[in-house]
Amino acid sequence: MDKIVSLAKRRGFVFQSSEIYGGLNGCWDYGPLGVELLRNIKEEWWKAMTYRDDIEGLDAAILMHPKVWEASGHVENFTDPMVDCKQCKTRFRIDTLSEMINEKKKKKILEDFKTGILNIPEFVEKYNETFIVAEERKEDPFDLLLENKELSQKLLQEINCPQCGNKNTFTSARQFNLMFKTFIGPVEDTGAVVYLRPETAQGIFVNFLNVQSSSRQKLPFGIAQVGKAFRNEINTKNFLFRTREFEQMEMQFFVKPVDDKKWYDYWKDERLQWFKDLGMTKSKLRYHDHPKEKLAHYAKEATDIEYEFPFGWGEIEGIHNRTDFDLSRHEEYSGKSLKYFDEESKEKFIPYIIETSAGASRSFMAFMVDAYYEEEVKGEMRSALKFHPRLAPIKAAILPLVNKDGMPEISQKIEIDLRKRFKVFYDDKGAVGRRYRRQDEAGTPFCITVDTQTLDDQTVTVRERDSMEQVRIQIENISSYLNDKLKF
Amino acid sequence: MDKIVSLAKRRGFVFQSSEIYGGLNGCWDYGPLGVELLRNIKEEWWKAMTYRDDIEGLDAAILMHPKVWEASGHVENFTDPMVDCKQCKTRFRIDTLSEMINEKKKKKILEDFKTGILNIPEFVEKYNETFIVAEERKEDPFDLLLENKELSQKLLQEINCPQCGNKNTFTSARQFNLMFKTFIGPVEDTGAVVYLRPETAQGIFVNFLNVQSSSRQKLPFGIAQVGKAFRNEINTKNFLFRTREFEQMEMQFFVKPVDDKKWYDYWKDERLQWFKDLGMTKSKLRYHDHPKEKLAHYAKEATDIEYEFPFGWGEIEGIHNRTDFDLSRHEEYSGKSLKYFDEESKEKFIPYIIETSAGASRSFMAFMVDAYYEEEVKGEMRSALKFHPRLAPIKAAILPLVNKDGMPEISQKIEIDLRKRFKVFYDDKGAVGRRYRRQDEAGTPFCITVDTQTLDDQTVTVRERDSMEQVRIQIENISSYLNDKLKF
Repeated sequence: MDKIVSLAKRRGFVFQSSEIYGGLNGCWDYGPLGVELLRNIKEEWWKAMTYRDDIEGLDAAILMHPKVWEASGHVENFTDPMVDCKQCKTRFRIDTLSEMINEKKKKKILEDFKTGILNIPEFVEKYNETFIVAEERKEDPFDLLLENKELSQKLLQEINCPQCGNKNTFTSARQFNLMFKTFIGPVEDTGAVVYLRPETAQGIFVNFLNVQSSSRQKLPFGIAQVGKAFRNEINTKNFLFRTREFEQMEMQFFVKPVDDKKWYDYWKDERLQWFKDLGMTKSKLRYHDHPKEKLAHYAKEATDIEYEFPFGWGEIEGIHNRTDFDLSRHEEYSGKSLKYFDEESKEKFIPYIIETSAGASRSFMAFMVDAYYEEEVKGEMRSALKFHPRLAPIKAAILPLVNKDGMPEISQKIEIDLRKRFKVFYDDKGAVGRRYRRQDEAGTPFCITVDTQTLDDQTVTVRERDSMEQVRIQIENISSYLNDKLKF
Repeated sequence: MDKIVSLAKRRGFVFQSSEIYGGLNGCWDYGPLGVELLRNIKEEWWKAMTYRDDIEGLDAAILMHPKVWEASGHVENFTDPMVDCKQCKTRFRIDTLSEMINEKKKKKILEDFKTGILNIPEFVEKYNETFIVAEERKEDPFDLLLENKELSQKLLQEINCPQCGNKNTFTSARQFNLMFKTFIGPVEDTGAVVYLRPETAQGIFVNFLNVQSSSRQKLPFGIAQVGKAFRNEINTKNFLFRTREFEQMEMQFFVKPVDDKKWYDYWKDERLQWFKDLGMTKSKLRYHDHPKEKLAHYAKEATDIEYEFPFGWGEIEGIHNRTDFDLSRHEEYSGKSLKYFDEESKEKFIPYIIETSAGASRSFMAFMVDAYYEEEVKGEMRSALKFHPRLAPIKAAILPLVNKDGMPEISQKIEIDLRKRFKVFYDDKGAVGRRYRRQDEAGTPFCITVDTQTLDDQTVTVRERDSMEQVRIQIENISSYLNDKLKF
């Protein structure tokens, strides 16, 4: 992982946001190569999702009417618990304390073991019960404690305040909303509060009838959107995995309630296949179906598509059967009918929604991690990013081998011709081996070299990144050769 | 203009944001056709600006370190004046009062004229002095008043508070910052304040050395970025022209100080040409050079590219010579050197910046207004959006004329083949004339009809939107025909 982060910075994929000012926690900037990779991921998603006759695109504003977030439940429920120290008045997000509590608990279990209160099987059982189970359920162990308020409160009393060192000083946990809040208009009062959207989905729900009537779609049909969302996260972590500003690629598919299972299964298949089609290692992808008792309040069925990151399995997309929850709530809160009229059955009803919600930023990281590999070639280390050609930031590099009469001109003409259609890179400096390595590291799938033979027969070599094999082709065929490989 | 706004809603170009909740002032959502048009504009810009060897792309976060906005001068200067009513405590942005003041002044001049205090030449002179001159300078007349504080204060005393009706009740004008403010972390204190960026440019400045070193660019070179920006505007107006959330397409070109004039002129030409190349009416485009005394504090030279909207000339892009102001300020505030080392001259210096700053949302509106036209065809009104094919949301519609054996299959096959590469639309319902009209209104440049002759000789007709002329071509040639016309 460290190698990826370092490569990301060095080669211009990802920089820390506002780095010269010490950075802004939980925000990242995409550099020259990163912005192309990100654009290509979003472009592939957009084509896969909207270049079909049953899905329409949308681009809703980030700022929405505050009532939207009341209807969605975010004002009430999109919260994390916090405590205050009664002594020094410092405020803590409670999960920054959870680590300490866990440490405390581990220490206690170990001590009980050392002093003979627990024997080996008891110790193992106790330890597993507290920590292993929690990890398997992919939860912070403290989440379990929170479910048991008494236990949680008791534990809070046992730890010292990290600020003032006092014990038994914490208030009970209170809820902190994770939405960023701002104010429209000059006065900072509650009437003017607006939120930065914590998800793009609501922009689709509130536009359901606008899109349906202007596009004349009939059920089943979907609305797709790519856009930024913001969460005032407690713990930002794992590079691009949990950030405060991120980008989502969401599609909401509106169906007759009776068809929900069919379309849920359909989209589950489709979305996993999309990652595979773009070259992601199959064995590093899996579903994580949410057990019934763990479903969100709006969901009837839910699954995560997970990727195996260096730090473990992590969600990169969720597929949810949201039922008629969202549209019903917006109908209730807006007082506007959001019912669909089915011309066949002459019935009016609120459609069910099957949602596919992918993280663009998380997909970016997954594609980058997945593409990275190292190998020894003739005693030298070669590292490369094996991006699918459609995702690669630069499609081809033009590398003139010698600087003879007429040759720079040929190379530049090739560059100019290709540039109209492809993102290409021209590099005439240094040994060709080093130039190849630089392109491997940037993930460029094809390197075109112009050599002395080019002057004689108007051919160039094309070297393929992964196999490092070279073929000789006519200059006039380069464009169609690339087109073919990129399958545009 | 009303026609455009109504078409925009009806056909799914632009909806009011959060419309079911009564809308959110100054925010708009792009519907199915709008999102494609907007994407195409941004894509053309991206290709024109970054598919060249001297410009790199970037995608910086919307949330930045608050110090950025101190260095840029926004915390101090990005303000508009406000007053409070001392009686009812209502707070007004001062320019919502300016209209009233102007009305007052008009009334006064008229009255003086009616009662004979002013004769005709005096009245004309007085009126022109106050209003015409101001309009020519494209300023709100109240701006002029603001320059004269005494006069402004005196006038404030003359008008009644629109809330409580009292007179002589306003405080003096105070400054209100136009940046949206929010808080990172759970506590709303000044230490945690962050702003929604009011412009994308600063994300480029602070990444200057990161981009330069990772891309190994040498001067002159540019960094280009497309992204959202936010301003807590006093008056949102003219549909997409002045909104609170909008999208910018900005490029900062870093040059040696001695070359600034050359590159300023170069980009001035290039950027106007871009709008023309995409079909915008030449006579509706002009430069508005800023006179020396009106330049922003950071600018040595500045020009607006203006488009003639139905409500008058309005800026759609600005080209600015920002000198070394921005990098110098960030160097000062961050304490990090932002100097460039020139290998040829062995000198270290801060480059000058030539900025091209286009509004994506404003360009969207200009392209839409410019494309709209109406004409009478055989006694019927036809309205169409004459988008350049590269900008058109839908590239081609497939319209089967009759429903005979084998014909829907042919039409569907054409659709499936084209869909892989183009955004297309399939419509088999209603009279073909009406289907054509619908596509004209959506701006679709080509309609492909499948008729009985198609079964015999595998040809279709392609009808061109603007000329309404039809040509007959082989099915297998449709794709290359479109490619040719779209000049991809």
